[in-house]
Amino acid sequence: MTIGDSVTLDQLPLRDDLRGKSPYGAPQLDVAVRLNTNENPYAPPPELVADLTKAIDEIAGELHRYPDRDAVALREDLAAYLAGSTGVPLTRENVWAANGSNEVLQQILQAFGGPGRTALGFEPSYSMHPIIASGTRTEWVPAPRRADFAIDVDAAVALLAERKPDVLFLTSPNNPTGQSLEPVELSRLVAAAPGIVVVDEAYAEFSDRPSAVTLLAEHPHKLIVSRTMSKAFAFAGGRLGYLAAAPAVVDALLLVRLPYHLSSLTQAAARAALRHAAATLGSVATLRSERARVVAALTDQGYDVVPSDANFVLFGRFTDAARAWRAFLDRGVLIRDVGIPERLRVTVGTPEENDVFLDVAASLVPGELKREQSA
Amino acid sequence: MTIGDSVTLDQLPLRDDLRGKSPYGAPQLDVAVRLNTNENPYAPPPELVADLTKAIDEIAGELHRYPDRDAVALREDLAAYLAGSTGVPLTRENVWAANGSNEVLQQILQAFGGPGRTALGFEPSYSMHPIIASGTRTEWVPAPRRADFAIDVDAAVALLAERKPDVLFLTSPNNPTGQSLEPVELSRLVAAAPGIVVVDEAYAEFSDRPSAVTLLAEHPHKLIVSRTMSKAFAFAGGRLGYLAAAPAVVDALLLVRLPYHLSSLTQAAARAALRHAAATLGSVATLRSERARVVAALTDQGYDVVPSDANFVLFGRFTDAARAWRAFLDRGVLIRDVGIPERLRVTVGTPEENDVFLDVAASLVPGELKREQSA
Repeated sequence: MTIGDSVTLDQLPLRDDLRGKSPYGAPQLDVAVRLNTNENPYAPPPELVADLTKAIDEIAGELHRYPDRDAVALREDLAAYLAGSTGVPLTRENVWAANGSNEVLQQILQAFGGPGRTALGFEPSYSMHPIIASGTRTEWVPAPRRADFAIDVDAAVALLAERKPDVLFLTSPNNPTGQSLEPVELSRLVAAAPGIVVVDEAYAEFSDRPSAVTLLAEHPHKLIVSRTMSKAFAFAGGRLGYLAAAPAVVDALLLVRLPYHLSSLTQAAARAALRHAAATLGSVATLRSERARVVAALTDQGYDVVPSDANFVLFGRFTDAARAWRAFLDRGVLIRDVGIPERLRVTVGTPEENDVFLDVAASLVPGELKREQSA
Repeated sequence: MTIGDSVTLDQLPLRDDLRGKSPYGAPQLDVAVRLNTNENPYAPPPELVADLTKAIDEIAGELHRYPDRDAVALREDLAAYLAGSTGVPLTRENVWAANGSNEVLQQILQAFGGPGRTALGFEPSYSMHPIIASGTRTEWVPAPRRADFAIDVDAAVALLAERKPDVLFLTSPNNPTGQSLEPVELSRLVAAAPGIVVVDEAYAEFSDRPSAVTLLAEHPHKLIVSRTMSKAFAFAGGRLGYLAAAPAVVDALLLVRLPYHLSSLTQAAARAALRHAAATLGSVATLRSERARVVAALTDQGYDVVPSDANFVLFGRFTDAARAWRAFLDRGVLIRDVGIPERLRVTVGTPEENDVFLDVAASLVPGELKREQSA
């Protein structure tokens, strides 16, 4: 008997637009091989753990005090990292941080979206974009991708002129399909956007393409580049998203951020993780070479594989993606059904994890769950 | 020369309702005696620091993985604490947690407020309530308090019948004025509310009044009690707010929370802090007795002091509160100008901090900044 359990959700005065919805989230299952949320499979190295623990120990005695509301030291470190990796001389005034890129994106839509405004994105893409739009009451305008999941840039430019979205979401590489935007495509789309452009670069470290940060000097009045430490930095549990933009954009976000949104723990731990960027990002090269191996093996096995510039691969085709997902799970491999018909997404893991995954993939019989090869 | 600094905030497509606004927040100044944000002045004890650091060390090797999205273990611990301190047998299904009570309140308004809905609060009160309402596009309905800052319950009940707010904010004790609602007042107001009632109990541990949690079994379809670890728990830097409600309310919040909003660091650190609740909350008795001393001393000095049930005191009257605030600051004591004419708010600090504060308060000359005593 739990206090209050006589009341059901449908008896509460919930907003109408939330009725019947389900909470976002991949199943968190205790499976041996978890390749479903695009985490970096390599644990933080011992020297990072030691340094992070020491940093927490140093600030824990001051936890009765509120954190630095503007996270100045962390933003300085993030700016230095981003400047070093992109060659663009960013300062802390160009950088903002929050509890995961989800919160960064929410703050952007609170400032530049909201009721009466629209946000446009090319689907399939990161499913949190429309969810955060909905949460901020921004009208979501879904735009199509080509059959190969690339953006038809001519059509997109025409659509931007027609729909005039207040916020345009671009993704490079795109989750869950894996492709990056080519520099010329990115430039055209940013130039054509009538309002704010958010380039979500959550997986940028896995790609060779130049960051959209290189376009910031040209488009300071509209361009925002979002990043995360969840993927390449192996810091998903630390929840640290950030962005690069003109200082005025950061000023705008200060108007909507919840004060003291970023704990002293988060600030100290993220700074420790950044001090070990070289070691952590060393795993990226391994993951890229594993990505190439997974793509080649899946192709050999007769799967249709979407070219990937990220740490995951979208593959198929299945007669029934949901049942195929279950077949992998039954064999101890948790991958992701992202809602694209006939396809599933697998995160690139360690070589051992990828071997297990590839063994299961090879075991699926053509003509049953897996479609017959067309060639 | 900063990238993008040619663009100013007024050149960005900011939402109209944000134009001209300033970011929320008390000045974060490096002053010897900081009595401005109602922090607990006592640092976490060494055994808590050691335990917390050990807890972080234990989870840091898994930071490449996303946190438990539902923070089950932490919610279990929070439920146990709240059950123990209120006598109400809450379980983890009754509890939800987020990055500070600000995020808890934001999620509540995302689920039960928003465009076309209203939230009502009795002012002066916690200034984030209307700000979070605005951030979620919930119409804010300010209701007055009596001249002594108490709520006129008869008038309030009539107002609730007239305005029918979707969300009612109550505060006990109320920040920045300090009074608690008496149980009979609280019961009447909760019963009279037509929609959701949020009782903000951020300072509950400093009060003798029973928690609104005791009313949960009677009003599961409307009552939400919010709490924070920032004040009595001396955990402001850890950013942990939580609430108690019917399980269906928690289900509603799952629809609007950003996935993985609470980091593994926060979950582990808050659990460590809860393990040391007895030690931390030991400071509450000292702070209460210091509160009595500060109130008595200020009264002796000729100040008009509002009775307080929290860890702060609202006092005056000043001819010019802003100038009086500056006079305290010039003498090394940072207190808070909360925007109430002729009054300032001081957090109860350590005995030494309170001595410094009281010395400065005594030095103000009646007839200048401080009004002449009326009696």
